[in-house]
Amino acid sequence: MNYQDLSIKLIQEQYKLKNSKSKSILVIIGGIELTRKNQSIKKLSELMDPRYLKIKAETPNRVKENKLIWQPYINDIPKNGQIMFFYGNWYTDLLASTILNDEKIQNNVFNEHLKRIYEFESYLKNNNVDIIKVWFDVSWSKVKIRTKNIDIINKIKRVPRFTWDDFPQKKWKTKTLYNQIQTLRNRFTHDWVIINSENNIERNTQFSQLILKHLKLPPVQIKNKFKYQAAPIPSILTQIKKSEISHIEYKKTIKQLERKVADVLRYSSHNVVLVFEGMDAAGKGSSIKRIIKFLGLHEYNIHSISAPENFERLRPYLWRFWNKHSTNGALNIFDRSWYGRVLVERVEDLINPIEWQNAYEEINQYEKQLSDTNTIVIKFWLAISKDEQLRRFYKRKNTPQKSFKLTEDDWRNREKWDAYLQAASDMFKYTSTDISPWHIIANDSKYAARIEILQTILHSVQNKNLGHLENL
Amino acid sequence: MNYQDLSIKLIQEQYKLKNSKSKSILVIIGGIELTRKNQSIKKLSELMDPRYLKIKAETPNRVKENKLIWQPYINDIPKNGQIMFFYGNWYTDLLASTILNDEKIQNNVFNEHLKRIYEFESYLKNNNVDIIKVWFDVSWSKVKIRTKNIDIINKIKRVPRFTWDDFPQKKWKTKTLYNQIQTLRNRFTHDWVIINSENNIERNTQFSQLILKHLKLPPVQIKNKFKYQAAPIPSILTQIKKSEISHIEYKKTIKQLERKVADVLRYSSHNVVLVFEGMDAAGKGSSIKRIIKFLGLHEYNIHSISAPENFERLRPYLWRFWNKHSTNGALNIFDRSWYGRVLVERVEDLINPIEWQNAYEEINQYEKQLSDTNTIVIKFWLAISKDEQLRRFYKRKNTPQKSFKLTEDDWRNREKWDAYLQAASDMFKYTSTDISPWHIIANDSKYAARIEILQTILHSVQNKNLGHLENL
Repeated sequence: MNYQDLSIKLIQEQYKLKNSKSKSILVIIGGIELTRKNQSIKKLSELMDPRYLKIKAETPNRVKENKLIWQPYINDIPKNGQIMFFYGNWYTDLLASTILNDEKIQNNVFNEHLKRIYEFESYLKNNNVDIIKVWFDVSWSKVKIRTKNIDIINKIKRVPRFTWDDFPQKKWKTKTLYNQIQTLRNRFTHDWVIINSENNIERNTQFSQLILKHLKLPPVQIKNKFKYQAAPIPSILTQIKKSEISHIEYKKTIKQLERKVADVLRYSSHNVVLVFEGMDAAGKGSSIKRIIKFLGLHEYNIHSISAPENFERLRPYLWRFWNKHSTNGALNIFDRSWYGRVLVERVEDLINPIEWQNAYEEINQYEKQLSDTNTIVIKFWLAISKDEQLRRFYKRKNTPQKSFKLTEDDWRNREKWDAYLQAASDMFKYTSTDISPWHIIANDSKYAARIEILQTILHSVQNKNLGHLENL
Repeated sequence: MNYQDLSIKLIQEQYKLKNSKSKSILVIIGGIELTRKNQSIKKLSELMDPRYLKIKAETPNRVKENKLIWQPYINDIPKNGQIMFFYGNWYTDLLASTILNDEKIQNNVFNEHLKRIYEFESYLKNNNVDIIKVWFDVSWSKVKIRTKNIDIINKIKRVPRFTWDDFPQKKWKTKTLYNQIQTLRNRFTHDWVIINSENNIERNTQFSQLILKHLKLPPVQIKNKFKYQAAPIPSILTQIKKSEISHIEYKKTIKQLERKVADVLRYSSHNVVLVFEGMDAAGKGSSIKRIIKFLGLHEYNIHSISAPENFERLRPYLWRFWNKHSTNGALNIFDRSWYGRVLVERVEDLINPIEWQNAYEEINQYEKQLSDTNTIVIKFWLAISKDEQLRRFYKRKNTPQKSFKLTEDDWRNREKWDAYLQAASDMFKYTSTDISPWHIIANDSKYAARIEILQTILHSVQNKNLGHLENL
């Protein structure tokens, strides 16, 4: 195919993708500068409509064991219909950090990052992000020839102000770095497309053809990796226990607990994520109020999660949660959360069964990665009886400062009570893990519930901190 | 009003605002730590539903003359329905930079920043952001008493890990800093609410009442500050000149120009913004292709602007453009732009006449601020005849790699040709300024047009760079 025909096909497929929004394409670029890989991307941009090609090219991030290696790239994950090129990416970060950092990255840490990368990429692939990984390769003899040429070019030409290729000819005087990179990249490029970059035209053509091939591919059909079996509804959800605590006793206990919780959260060496789920009027808001009572406004973030916006829908489901965990040392409180995937989106038939059934494992993996990177995830289901909900709805209706909290949706959701009970039961069965179990709190009696919630937070954070000390 | 009544009212109004999305509230907080201003905000958060209060509190940004002082806050400008508190804000940046920096900020620079702030705030106010500016004030004698108390507290209590108030009692040993801050803040607090912060309860109540008052206020009714008079349609838009250039001559000239433009853009000491507007099929995409021909993919960003998303609609119109100018030294190319306000949004009746008429001045102000902060804005209108458009539509229809570019919208817009001509003419009349004139390029003959565009960029950037050198 000559360039003109290739261009026609590429543009055709580019617009098809742009209009259909059936998937996104993420191209991960690897290889040293002397492969002239950027010429291939430049050529591709000339063959396509450059207005709809996006590129991320920044200096490498320093990789840290207790930081998610893919976190810095979250905002640039393409949305359906988009094509994105990552010059800088999680692999280049891993390579650069291993080679350039003073403290070398140990083998096991390198492998741990790779594992997290694979899980993350696998999640993306199953959620409409088509990932193309391309390693531009070049032989050592060609490197030596190109280095010489650069020396000559450099003498006659100014170096441009912005440039990805910073002509690092000194680096290539000996073969050490070249060998080091080849050894390291061989640990992860087994599933990459390797493009021999010695001949410019062949390299450009092969790269353009590769992109064209992927543009034509339909979105990956997600397989049901999961054998779903409906869980029995636990009695704790249907027979809500009542606990009598006097107002005086409550007042005394709660204040002490509120102070202790504030202190423990404030001084914890971990990030803490609190997740609140439950039926409407289950008391999520008032529970959260007690947790933050003695915290400064800058010591926590509360995320109230409602239906996703359009730009969020065009990305993998978890995308809109990923970027809410970035602050280090932070307390993030979720008033509803990513569990919406297996609750409201399932019950309201917004997604198909394969999607919500796969979500269990995806969520577990996500929480495991959070846990592995210094974050405690504590999950609460506030359980109320159907009668108690009705009582609270009427109370809201008749109380001026609460009437605004009651919406038509609340009444509609109430009609689906049993479906939500089933969804919650399945959620407990499949996502209550050792590292992040569900805490089901009977909340018909608010006093006892609040105390239980605060105590749970206290114990969870203290235990984790103790575990942390033992590891020292 | 006691706290309970106040709470009822506050929550009522908070939910009204949240549901109606009629405006947003931005609270700008000023005053030294010893006013205990954070206690007032904490108290307010207890009286309201804390899940829907947002707060921004970061260490001050260093103010620079050639950087827009409000730029770091763009992403946190609240959307309609939200309430946002800025602890850190453009005023605290200005104060901190003036007091703490080694190079003191000169009076005229201080005033220039204030001017930009006022213009920016005025834009926000006219676009549904209700700004409340509160200065918490305290006398010197009270400062001395509170400093002593802090000394005692510090001895018996650990300092929390996160804290806005970092107990800087040493700073307040003498009156110098106190006086300095009072003098500086008097230069801008004339339109602030000053809250005497000596008595804790009075301070908290006054602050909460102030927020309640603003929650109750309806959105500002924008006045028509502008006497609009329709512009005559310039003949350049109706009689498109044709220029004959041979293919050979074109090829020779364009390549040289493309290289020169790439060089000039690459080495320019200014940020460059290129704006492309014009009817459908006017040739925006192919013009842009020539500009970037010899630029690396990392040397430019192309922003293709279409209809705003919902989260963008809930913010002032210019919001979605502000954050696209942040990169320093960048070349930003807009394929359609903020001029959509006075083109498509006007023609399609998406906004009322007051809104689009006020937009002229708002846009001029915006471009002036860009220009004042080291950015060249070069604007092109690609003019084609109605016949030529039809010819190109059919060509698109019949060319495989172009057929996807033609949509139903294009045919619909074509029916409003005359309305667009009028809107464009008015736009030229009101937004062609000395610092950023419109360049109307007759584009029925693509060869001549492309050459003209490249030459215009070349001259505009070179002139600006020369001006820059003269100023040294």
